[in-house]
Amino acid sequence: AQGRLLLAAALVSDAQYNRNIPFETSPGAVRLYYLYNHWVMQATTYFFIFLNLSLVLFEEPAVYPLPFLATSLIEVLCLLVFSVRLMHFAKVTPRNVFWKDTKNICVMVAILMSLTDLAIFGALRIYNVRSVRWSRIVRPIFLINFAESRQIRRAFRSIRNTFPEITYVFLLFMFSVLMFSLMALKLFGERNLQTAEGLPYFTNYLEIVFDLYVLVTTANSPDVMMPAFDFSWWYALFFITYVIINTYIFMSVFLAVVYNNYRKHLKNEIRKLAYMKRRKMVEAFNLLKEEEGAEFVVREAQWKQLVKLVAPDISNSHRELLLHISDDEQKGFIDKKSFVRLADLLNIQVITLKIRRHPLGRWMPRVYSSAASQFLRSMVRHRGFVWTYDVIILINAIFIALDEESPYISYAEWVFLALYIIEILLKVYTYEPRTFFGKNQFWNWFDTLIIFAALTATILNTTLKSTTEYNSQQILDIVFILRVLRLIRIVDSIQRFRVIMNTLINIVPTMLTFGGLTLVVYYVFAIIGMELFQGKIQFFPANSNAPHALECGNPALKDSMFARGKYCKNNFNNFASSFIVLLELTVVNQCGFAKVTVQAAKLYFIAFHIVMVIIIVNIFVSFILEAFFVEY
Amino acid sequence: AQGRLLLAAALVSDAQYNRNIPFETSPGAVRLYYLYNHWVMQATTYFFIFLNLSLVLFEEPAVYPLPFLATSLIEVLCLLVFSVRLMHFAKVTPRNVFWKDTKNICVMVAILMSLTDLAIFGALRIYNVRSVRWSRIVRPIFLINFAESRQIRRAFRSIRNTFPEITYVFLLFMFSVLMFSLMALKLFGERNLQTAEGLPYFTNYLEIVFDLYVLVTTANSPDVMMPAFDFSWWYALFFITYVIINTYIFMSVFLAVVYNNYRKHLKNEIRKLAYMKRRKMVEAFNLLKEEEGAEFVVREAQWKQLVKLVAPDISNSHRELLLHISDDEQKGFIDKKSFVRLADLLNIQVITLKIRRHPLGRWMPRVYSSAASQFLRSMVRHRGFVWTYDVIILINAIFIALDEESPYISYAEWVFLALYIIEILLKVYTYEPRTFFGKNQFWNWFDTLIIFAALTATILNTTLKSTTEYNSQQILDIVFILRVLRLIRIVDSIQRFRVIMNTLINIVPTMLTFGGLTLVVYYVFAIIGMELFQGKIQFFPANSNAPHALECGNPALKDSMFARGKYCKNNFNNFASSFIVLLELTVVNQCGFAKVTVQAAKLYFIAFHIVMVIIIVNIFVSFILEAFFVEY
Ligand code: NA
Repeated sequence: AQGRLLLAAALVSDAQYNRNIPFETSPGAVRLYYLYNHWVMQATTYFFIFLNLSLVLFEEPAVYPLPFLATSLIEVLCLLVFSVRLMHFAKVTPRNVFWKDTKNICVMVAILMSLTDLAIFGALRIYNVRSVRWSRIVRPIFLINFAESRQIRRAFRSIRNTFPEITYVFLLFMFSVLMFSLMALKLFGERNLQTAEGLPYFTNYLEIVFDLYVLVTTANSPDVMMPAFDFSWWYALFFITYVIINTYIFMSVFLAVVYNNYRKHLKNEIRKLAYMKRRKMVEAFNLLKEEEGAEFVVREAQWKQLVKLVAPDISNSHRELLLHISDDEQKGFIDKKSFVRLADLLNIQVITLKIRRHPLGRWMPRVYSSAASQFLRSMVRHRGFVWTYDVIILINAIFIALDEESPYISYAEWVFLALYIIEILLKVYTYEPRTFFGKNQFWNWFDTLIIFAALTATILNTTLKSTTEYNSQQILDIVFILRVLRLIRIVDSIQRFRVIMNTLINIVPTMLTFGGLTLVVYYVFAIIGMELFQGKIQFFPANSNAPHALECGNPALKDSMFARGKYCKNNFNNFASSFIVLLELTVVNQCGFAKVTVQAAKLYFIAFHIVMVIIIVNIFVSFILEAFFVEY
Repeated sequence: AQGRLLLAAALVSDAQYNRNIPFETSPGAVRLYYLYNHWVMQATTYFFIFLNLSLVLFEEPAVYPLPFLATSLIEVLCLLVFSVRLMHFAKVTPRNVFWKDTKNICVMVAILMSLTDLAIFGALRIYNVRSVRWSRIVRPIFLINFAESRQIRRAFRSIRNTFPEITYVFLLFMFSVLMFSLMALKLFGERNLQTAEGLPYFTNYLEIVFDLYVLVTTANSPDVMMPAFDFSWWYALFFITYVIINTYIFMSVFLAVVYNNYRKHLKNEIRKLAYMKRRKMVEAFNLLKEEEGAEFVVREAQWKQLVKLVAPDISNSHRELLLHISDDEQKGFIDKKSFVRLADLLNIQVITLKIRRHPLGRWMPRVYSSAASQFLRSMVRHRGFVWTYDVIILINAIFIALDEESPYISYAEWVFLALYIIEILLKVYTYEPRTFFGKNQFWNWFDTLIIFAALTATILNTTLKSTTEYNSQQILDIVFILRVLRLIRIVDSIQRFRVIMNTLINIVPTMLTFGGLTLVVYYVFAIIGMELFQGKIQFFPANSNAPHALECGNPALKDSMFARGKYCKNNFNNFASSFIVLLELTVVNQCGFAKVTVQAAKLYFIAFHIVMVIIIVNIFVSFILEAFFVEY
């Protein structure tokens, strides 16, 4: 009976959190399954996934170099953890399901590939042969394919579903680019025009195709047009037509196709999740059901035990409330229909509306309810209190903008800090602390954390300054940022702004999924970019005497706009730099790089643009569009 | 009775074309109203509106200079035409309605302002005083406010409706920009960093605000980040956060708000139009109704006369079909419900499905139905025929891409032209010509026009070449473009592409409305830009010996990236240049200009970005999104 209850609880819990893992139903397997889902196990897995991913910062070419032995030991440790986690999963899930699931196969293959690559690379290193750490590209597989990353996998599925439709539009778009390139070749190729850098203008078909592709991202506008425009302003019409058709119309069509698909897909996913949830709840019901007259039911005692197992944290009164909803006629048992709803009921945040007495009211009732105290509290509750602090924030903003050098202004900072601390203390004095720091009180948490962090950092810096006469720049920077962040609070005072801000705050969790997705794409492209373009461009600090310092260490870049614009740090020499170059590519397709390296680099940039901008950014925009339609 | 019929026909016609002009119902006024709506009158009005707008090309600072007397005479003529048109409208519409309509007041004020300005400018010119032709800014009012421009007015209404909601998001967005600027000032201002041009980096608050605003448009990415990034790559995090929040999230929120509003507004407009249409049809019914038993009806003879008046072009069989639909029980009269549907019935394109005999089949039946002719026709109808020509088009594409110099290739062009002409002739031989050149046969028209234009241009060029030994570059350019355009035909052979292309072709008419809208915004900003920034930057052809030719004629631009990048032709010295600079601003916010002129120029650029990119481009994208949801 206890085994059945445990199994039912596992099913209800899966239904509540939308987990879809088939597991063995033997009591031992169910206990292992509980352990598998324990938050410590999940957190550990994520920790090692991110540790494994972050190794790239310490391996050659490193941002922070560590010896090869250290990084490879850490990697082996990570792979060991992944293997253990996978074996744990194999114990939990039925054997045939386990071997049919591509996720598991992927993880196993990735582990084997990583180990093989590590062994080969290590062996060759001993003989001083430099080889490529190609297995680093498979590291994001661990992030995608462990069962915890359901959301990221869903996002990838969404991308895969968009693919066929996008492909047709993309082919049409590329056809248009090729046609325009052909026209450009004929119109401008024989004019002997020159670019700003003195190179021949639009004479090579493939280069025209690339330049016009980049024009779609607007990165080389208006540079690509200037030579033709200087020749005759009628030629500007060619570029105007091009931009209208390819940048405005086609890019909007991409968004339309992705958004359309996103909505369709979202509807299907929600339907499927609801179906799976119901199936699990029915399964749990069948485990616990007893006969009662003509129908099967779950008895109240059983039900209570189940809820205690599934949600051990909720209070007695909350559980009684759930029971009251499920058994609304107080018959002492719950029928199937009510039972199935339990998964959704558990997800509803119950705000305990009962007015809690302030602890100070209990500890020193005389003082807390004195006239002075009541006056103080009514003052804090008054709208004027909020307005006063809005004015203080504005004055603070002005002080921040003013010059720091004057001693008065630096004293003023202490005054503002004190005023903010007083505000928080007054509020905690007036409102019940547990309500004030409730789960949904985002702004209260925000204020308090910011102020205490600022206080800590300021004190730390002052101590450092008085003991070592040395301002820590890092701490000062953090204090600055915290002080400016404090100003955001003013937004909350205006109803219309609050609505928009709340919508934005509500979509943060889903945006983290996009963060994961972006991380995977960036990681793969950064690794490839590093292997392909490492060392082609070097960064030298200003006033460097190194040869070719002005040409980014590459004689081919002499007098190029790339070197003159001081873009030398935009290189693929380590992971951090690669990451930032990819970010620039996402934003504006900064492809100066392609010009200075091999021709094949252009394919790399186009591939990245297609994956990142045409697909992922559009999904991101679709997601925000949808969120705003629902919430705003 | 004839007067009543004429009035009813005017009402039905208004309902059919969604015109909402209240007009006097006296027979004389109705006749005037017919004249007012005649297409010649409308075309004339549009002609003079565009003539008036195009004057800017010929007035100082001119693209093609004309004497002041000529342009002012043309302007007076235009204003005269507008006055006559307005007086015509005043005769048609009831007096109190006319004076309450802001459109008419606007046009009158605009005419008066233009005349006053012209007089003052002319008078001052005589005394050699240079003044500003400020009234040129009101010229787009004629485009917006004449009754013909219903679509453009609707688009402007849509913008006005979006304004309140956009404003709140925009304020929040600006708040975010100001906050980040404050952080940037504190983080980077005291580091003594320098930009690529050697200027101090991020030391002035207002300049930071502008730079970061421009970063939202991605125009100065990554330039604006490089000095901080060179100093420490951690500072890149600041810019990454900024771009995610302000470029990605806020810009998507703008789109979401605009799109949301667009959909809401569209629904309202459609509902309102349907209501107005119904009201007009009921009014027309009431004019023609006769009693028949218990209900009022319109007799068949009356109805036929009405339809002949409203749609004189439709064939007898088409009219009989409409009658059959309206009087489906053949009772000899039409009831109110059927009558009201007439406006919609008239809008339905009836494709005459009857198989017409080929004229050749009538003229020479023996030859046309001979075995050889039948074989030829079945060959043309065969799929292989389309495929053969697709292959020919592909080979042609390769020939176009190859070098023109070889004589074989230039002969090949004649071969391809001949092949295409043969294709069209064969098709006309096979399919009935009136069906082949039907209204909806876009591709047939496209092919035929392209080929005949190419043929004409090629012959013209060959004639020129043989008589004067001189290749006209303009004609050659046109021939090139036509030849490349011919290649588009291949898209039509693939079903999936055809669907996308048809959607794109169907939205062309509405895109013309956006063209009008964009023209108005560009016109106003171009005029302002010309008055503010005229002559600040000059363009010199390469190898010019003029002083400061390398600095765009402005010593302040010495060694600037603007001059080095050869952007000198991006100036506001005449309307064409201004127009193209504004286009660049729309695409990528090329604001190098702001740096080199007055500080206030920055406000101009920001204003343009808000109007054009945040509002109009987003409405354009919304429109494409919606069109694709409905059509695709
Ligand atoms: Na851009």
